[in-house]
Amino acid sequence: MSIGPFLQRNWLGAVGEFDRAECIMVGLPYDGTCSNRPGARFAPQEIRLASHGLETYSPVLDKDLSEIRFYDAGELDFQFGNREDTLSKIEKAAQEIFSENKKWLGIGGEHLVTLPAVKACHKKYPDLCLVHFDAHSDLINEYLNEKLSHATVIKRISEFISPEKLIQSGLRSGTKEEFQWIRKNKTLFNTDDEFFSRIEKVKNTPVYLTVDLDVLDPSIFSGTGTPEPGGLSFNELINRLIALQDLNIVGADVVELSPHYDHSGVSTLTAAKIIREVLLIMH
Amino acid sequence: MSIGPFLQRNWLGAVGEFDRAECIMVGLPYDGTCSNRPGARFAPQEIRLASHGLETYSPVLDKDLSEIRFYDAGELDFQFGNREDTLSKIEKAAQEIFSENKKWLGIGGEHLVTLPAVKACHKKYPDLCLVHFDAHSDLINEYLNEKLSHATVIKRISEFISPEKLIQSGLRSGTKEEFQWIRKNKTLFNTDDEFFSRIEKVKNTPVYLTVDLDVLDPSIFSGTGTPEPGGLSFNELINRLIALQDLNIVGADVVELSPHYDHSGVSTLTAAKIIREVLLIMH
Amino acid sequence: MSIGPFLQRNWLGAVGEFDRAECIMVGLPYDGTCSNRPGARFAPQEIRLASHGLETYSPVLDKDLSEIRFYDAGELDFQFGNREDTLSKIEKAAQEIFSENKKWLGIGGEHLVTLPAVKACHKKYPDLCLVHFDAHSDLINEYLNEKLSHATVIKRISEFISPEKLIQSGLRSGTKEEFQWIRKNKTLFNTDDEFFSRIEKVKNTPVYLTVDLDVLDPSIFSGTGTPEPGGLSFNELINRLIALQDLNIVGADVVELSPHYDHSGVSTLTAAKIIREVLLIMH
Amino acid sequence: MSIGPFLQRNWLGAVGEFDRAECIMVGLPYDGTCSNRPGARFAPQEIRLASHGLETYSPVLDKDLSEIRFYDAGELDFQFGNREDTLSKIEKAAQEIFSENKKWLGIGGEHLVTLPAVKACHKKYPDLCLVHFDAHSDLINEYLNEKLSHATVIKRISEFISPEKLIQSGLRSGTKEEFQWIRKNKTLFNTDDEFFSRIEKVKNTPVYLTVDLDVLDPSIFSGTGTPEPGGLSFNELINRLIALQDLNIVGADVVELSPHYDHSGVSTLTAAKIIREVLLIMH
Amino acid sequence: MSIGPFLQRNWLGAVGEFDRAECIMVGLPYDGTCSNRPGARFAPQEIRLASHGLETYSPVLDKDLSEIRFYDAGELDFQFGNREDTLSKIEKAAQEIFSENKKWLGIGGEHLVTLPAVKACHKKYPDLCLVHFDAHSDLINEYLNEKLSHATVIKRISEFISPEKLIQSGLRSGTKEEFQWIRKNKTLFNTDDEFFSRIEKVKNTPVYLTVDLDVLDPSIFSGTGTPEPGGLSFNELINRLIALQDLNIVGADVVELSPHYDHSGVSTLTAAKIIREVLLIMH
Amino acid sequence: MSIGPFLQRNWLGAVGEFDRAECIMVGLPYDGTCSNRPGARFAPQEIRLASHGLETYSPVLDKDLSEIRFYDAGELDFQFGNREDTLSKIEKAAQEIFSENKKWLGIGGEHLVTLPAVKACHKKYPDLCLVHFDAHSDLINEYLNEKLSHATVIKRISEFISPEKLIQSGLRSGTKEEFQWIRKNKTLFNTDDEFFSRIEKVKNTPVYLTVDLDVLDPSIFSGTGTPEPGGLSFNELINRLIALQDLNIVGADVVELSPHYDHSGVSTLTAAKIIREVLLIMH
Repeated sequence: MSIGPFLQRNWLGAVGEFDRAECIMVGLPYDGTCSNRPGARFAPQEIRLASHGLETYSPVLDKDLSEIRFYDAGELDFQFGNREDTLSKIEKAAQEIFSENKKWLGIGGEHLVTLPAVKACHKKYPDLCLVHFDAHSDLINEYLNEKLSHATVIKRISEFISPEKLIQSGLRSGTKEEFQWIRKNKTLFNTDDEFFSRIEKVKNTPVYLTVDLDVLDPSIFSGTGTPEPGGLSFNELINRLIALQDLNIVGADVVELSPHYDHSGVSTLTAAKIIREVLLIMH
Repeated sequence: MSIGPFLQRNWLGAVGEFDRAECIMVGLPYDGTCSNRPGARFAPQEIRLASHGLETYSPVLDKDLSEIRFYDAGELDFQFGNREDTLSKIEKAAQEIFSENKKWLGIGGEHLVTLPAVKACHKKYPDLCLVHFDAHSDLINEYLNEKLSHATVIKRISEFISPEKLIQSGLRSGTKEEFQWIRKNKTLFNTDDEFFSRIEKVKNTPVYLTVDLDVLDPSIFSGTGTPEPGGLSFNELINRLIALQDLNIVGADVVELSPHYDHSGVSTLTAAKIIREVLLIMH
Repeated sequence: MSIGPFLQRNWLGAVGEFDRAECIMVGLPYDGTCSNRPGARFAPQEIRLASHGLETYSPVLDKDLSEIRFYDAGELDFQFGNREDTLSKIEKAAQEIFSENKKWLGIGGEHLVTLPAVKACHKKYPDLCLVHFDAHSDLINEYLNEKLSHATVIKRISEFISPEKLIQSGLRSGTKEEFQWIRKNKTLFNTDDEFFSRIEKVKNTPVYLTVDLDVLDPSIFSGTGTPEPGGLSFNELINRLIALQDLNIVGADVVELSPHYDHSGVSTLTAAKIIREVLLIMH
Repeated sequence: MSIGPFLQRNWLGAVGEFDRAECIMVGLPYDGTCSNRPGARFAPQEIRLASHGLETYSPVLDKDLSEIRFYDAGELDFQFGNREDTLSKIEKAAQEIFSENKKWLGIGGEHLVTLPAVKACHKKYPDLCLVHFDAHSDLINEYLNEKLSHATVIKRISEFISPEKLIQSGLRSGTKEEFQWIRKNKTLFNTDDEFFSRIEKVKNTPVYLTVDLDVLDPSIFSGTGTPEPGGLSFNELINRLIALQDLNIVGADVVELSPHYDHSGVSTLTAAKIIREVLLIMH
Repeated sequence: MSIGPFLQRNWLGAVGEFDRAECIMVGLPYDGTCSNRPGARFAPQEIRLASHGLETYSPVLDKDLSEIRFYDAGELDFQFGNREDTLSKIEKAAQEIFSENKKWLGIGGEHLVTLPAVKACHKKYPDLCLVHFDAHSDLINEYLNEKLSHATVIKRISEFISPEKLIQSGLRSGTKEEFQWIRKNKTLFNTDDEFFSRIEKVKNTPVYLTVDLDVLDPSIFSGTGTPEPGGLSFNELINRLIALQDLNIVGADVVELSPHYDHSGVSTLTAAKIIREVLLIMH
Repeated sequence: MSIGPFLQRNWLGAVGEFDRAECIMVGLPYDGTCSNRPGARFAPQEIRLASHGLETYSPVLDKDLSEIRFYDAGELDFQFGNREDTLSKIEKAAQEIFSENKKWLGIGGEHLVTLPAVKACHKKYPDLCLVHFDAHSDLINEYLNEKLSHATVIKRISEFISPEKLIQSGLRSGTKEEFQWIRKNKTLFNTDDEFFSRIEKVKNTPVYLTVDLDVLDPSIFSGTGTPEPGGLSFNELINRLIALQDLNIVGADVVELSPHYDHSGVSTLTAAKIIREVLLIMH
């Protein structure tokens, strides 16, 4: 075909082939256990469109997407509303990617999508640390009588990654029992100082980074299922992400944008910009 | 307590006690199998608020809510995301209501909530007819590999209510196979004439009425999961409902409002007004 | 009736009976003097719905709504557009509640609803202090030729509570004359330091707390009649509220949410969360 | 000043001077008795902006705004929230305009603004007929204990213009009592045939035309205080307006746009286009 | 790569290769001459996402997208804001496609994109007829001193396709001069009868079909630059499209969705459904 | 005409005559080179309406609009979509205003409107400094092959105002090349300290101030073409503006509000409030 040129349909700056890539971006359009406002299923496709409004260069990191090689694989096709199918497809895809010594970057969807990816990552890297940004602790044991849910995901992960390898930040909502567990296990690092000094100690460990975007204050991120006032500003989150750039991040995900709840488009754009920075710090 | 008076919190015109009522309104806040735009879970509570913007009198029916006795039971409390729990709680509630010789009025929620209510109704009234307003035929056998879904609900019902007792109206979207079934079984009555003469023939039969609000054109009803252009105008639907007022409607539901998709509030108000008319024709 | 269980329709965590409660929550759906963008009349019912998206536990206060006993009385039924009827119904209800040695928590509605409640409170507690969070000073003598208005409410209160018992915070808009009065009477405590040291001095005095939610920056609270850029962040307001927890707060209100101006739902949720914290610090 | 040219700030096609005009357009930004969704106060200024998106030529009337002479006087400055001041300012302005043998075109605002204009008009033209388009009958005697309200305006007018001079069209909501009055007095002409033959009979009488825009179906006009499904389509209303063009319309108003409830801008644009047609048929 | 399966990213039902296709869909994201509300540049990508909410089967046509072969080429990459570059890229692409005896389906963008496509089409098919659905006549000679604009596009086309080969439908806005031209040249067929009998006469001629979506009433299609009340209902437009299915349509386009002006998503979905029907009638 | 009084239609606090004014406010409704989300064309008229929701008094500056004399000239009438006509009309108007020793206050529109105004200003004041608030550096040489664009405006200005007279603040997005230029030429002063000490040095120089409102964080200013998370809070920007009040500001503009992208109205109100402060510091 000689007509053209045509606009790029992949994520801004993505390379054309899976094989050339060091990092694989996979869309995870699932929101089946979201008990409050659903819609995270629409996030991966909307973030991809918004990515083309960004520059490829990050002034705060002084890096450019042209320096890295990532592949935009598209959205996994889940059997609708089937949680087990969803979890098993994610785990299988992540295993495959880790087995080729590539990095995983999941684009949620709701937070439950993190569980199978961390499982696959942990099999490959048994001493894995988890860095967890979130407004909610996600440490409930059973949520509405359900063991696999966006509200229990970190609890399930804590059954195979011990609390001393869990670094949480931004948490500001949960039950009394969850916060008692957090205080007992000292997993929460909410101030800059606490967070930066904790991060110093995991420089030689493989790290999985999970960013629940509701860690941001709803002033900058209203498009999410359970907005929680009192969160991080965009720059506060970016500064903590910058602190991670010397770590060995082997897998990551960015979850919980529900784009239809923010008609201004700012939430979707913010998600895209954070993913750009995550891509650059994973390199 | 002597402070007050306070505003009414029940549905406009509801009576205060279950026992005095001839009709029981039950909210069914479930949208777990909605494959497109979710949010029908929020419908019952939003419709209740909107009902207070209506008059109690219907000029087209020349009837007033003060002439009937219905009870607003509130929303059933489902185990979140658990389809089986949802279906069984609805069936149990409907059975109880039918066993007391009262009428059932379900407020969805997505269309799957109709299945257990019709099951319970059919047990009580074995010669039950189903009048079904919808944009979609909901006759798929398995939707995304799933037998119980908002897209299969009428197919499931057709397994115990035979096609000659099924009266569909407003349908304008489906697969080729669904429309072949419809043509073979002659269940569709899309013009006024077809519909009115079909209705004439069920005057001596107990009837369950299910209104999927997306039967309306999206111009008047944009707040739904799967809007489908080319639907009925409000007055066209009302005229068909008026035609039902001489029937013996023993149960009914009104489903598939997803209120967050219509910021003007018109969809929610329209749902409330249709429910008012349904209440009046059930009397 | 044996059908159910049903979802709770009262405010999250409310107790079932007036008599058992130490604090009575009363909705005040009035916005008749709002000169800019109306709609605060819709706030109480919307906040109640949003409250069910919150946890009952507050990590910053380490307290849970289960530890307190408050009653959700519903919305007072005002004669529409009749300011005098509105003011007298509020005053009567507040008097009754104070006479039973219970605490008052008004949910506005516009700011004028504060006047009758403070009047009733002041009769019971003649040495009452007023803590006033707001973007606007509300100290105009006559607004658009009107002595009773949301823009004059604090001026009216200052006619029976002397300026030295008035503690204002967050103010950033007004006429030259208003700010001259404020400077002369030293009622404004806009920085953390000023506010915290002023609060220290009223620990032995009964306090009425009025929170005009537009004290928050419009970035986190756009759903209000007169948004005013340059306000407090959510955490700044919460920290000032925490500072009040050792005071003897005998009455309070939270006013000026106009929910239809924020389609993201964040403003309504923020109002609900602030009310939760106010409930917990009143205990 | 030689800089320029500048865009026109008056209504599309308005002439520059009061004296040259045969028709005076007056904005009436009042919504104080609107019991449901307020905001009609913002209508006149928003309609003026939207008018510049229209053509000056009407194909259905084959007339152009350049053929008539109307003056855009701006919005009357009411004492905020003061109903009496509002009503008296309108009556005074209308009297002045009628006394100069000019025509009045009021742009609401809520429907109560019609009362003083019709009063002034009736003094000048004692055999005045009223043509009334509306969804609501506005015939309540006292609404929420109030005699002067948007819900009672036609009742008040019927106290000095007798029912046989009242021509109502589009009505579809009201109390049982209101519809009994309507049926008894035969004021309602809801079908095209009824309306057109009734209009034939007032060709020799001065006419005041009042268009409550909620006569339109909410599908085309969602931006109003009390949307009422089942209304006229745009073309149905236009055809009835065209039928009026041979009458002697001496005064008119177009009321009840609440622009903030329709973010698409369609309601405001529709209001502007109807006003253009009203201007052309008044000529 | 063995991970997957992934969701389809092309238009619903598109085939994978250019060469196999009989019809080529090309996105034309340009809105540079839109004088009112811009944003049609965002239409092609949004319509593609929305297409996946449709069924592949059309009940009114009893045809399925699986029966045809069309290729989704993506969006042409225009030099931003450069009208000449835009027009020449479109013309070149269309020429190429016509030269391979394939059909052209352009997805606007604003209406000016039709000009170069019709030019290319006319070169290939010199006896080409143009069927033009629109609210506006687009027959101005110079719009705001500009000869190439969305408001002049049909005028420019009429310079090489004579008026007797021009069939216009749905027009309801324009200047007096435009409507004089239309009446003189008898190009307008606004009623069903007029349109259907005119269409009968072009059965043996190659036809280019251009659908400016604002031909639809704003009740169903608010998301456009210049909404114009009084338009066709969805079914009225579909019926006229069905009437075209026996013609030899060699090229077509669907233009003027401005998706950000309709937050309900209905306009975008409606555009997608109309394109599905256009695809099916071109076959 | 003796009817009235009428509401003011000019900007809040404007004087009635050009000749009496020291500062002339000119609306510049152009957005033709905006490559992302258009709509800045609507800003001047919307800001004017919003200005009437402000007080005339600024507490942070302790100044009142009544102390200054500015004239609201209205919006320039550009030949639509014609960049050259636009630029030349702005330059001519600015020249005229500077030639009468008045100050220029442009209300955008997109950022390209700054170029002709600065050109005219620089002719009058050859030692002019430029203070530039923005999220984007606008220093690209050719944007999408275009030399005159909102993304190149500062680059074009830097061709006649040397970099040492350029003071940029708030920048956080651009290409690698742009940031290399910035670092080489030391034009960026992003922290308070850097900015305040740089400003100290231009107290004796005429200054042109250009505020691209996207310098603000999207949390407070979502209504813009290219929102960029991580920006200044409202108070941070105001503090930097206050620092300018001892400078000799001879011209200024405030650009890039795209009002339709923020339905809450906060962005438009924020723009109006910043313009009020700019008016007060120019005095």
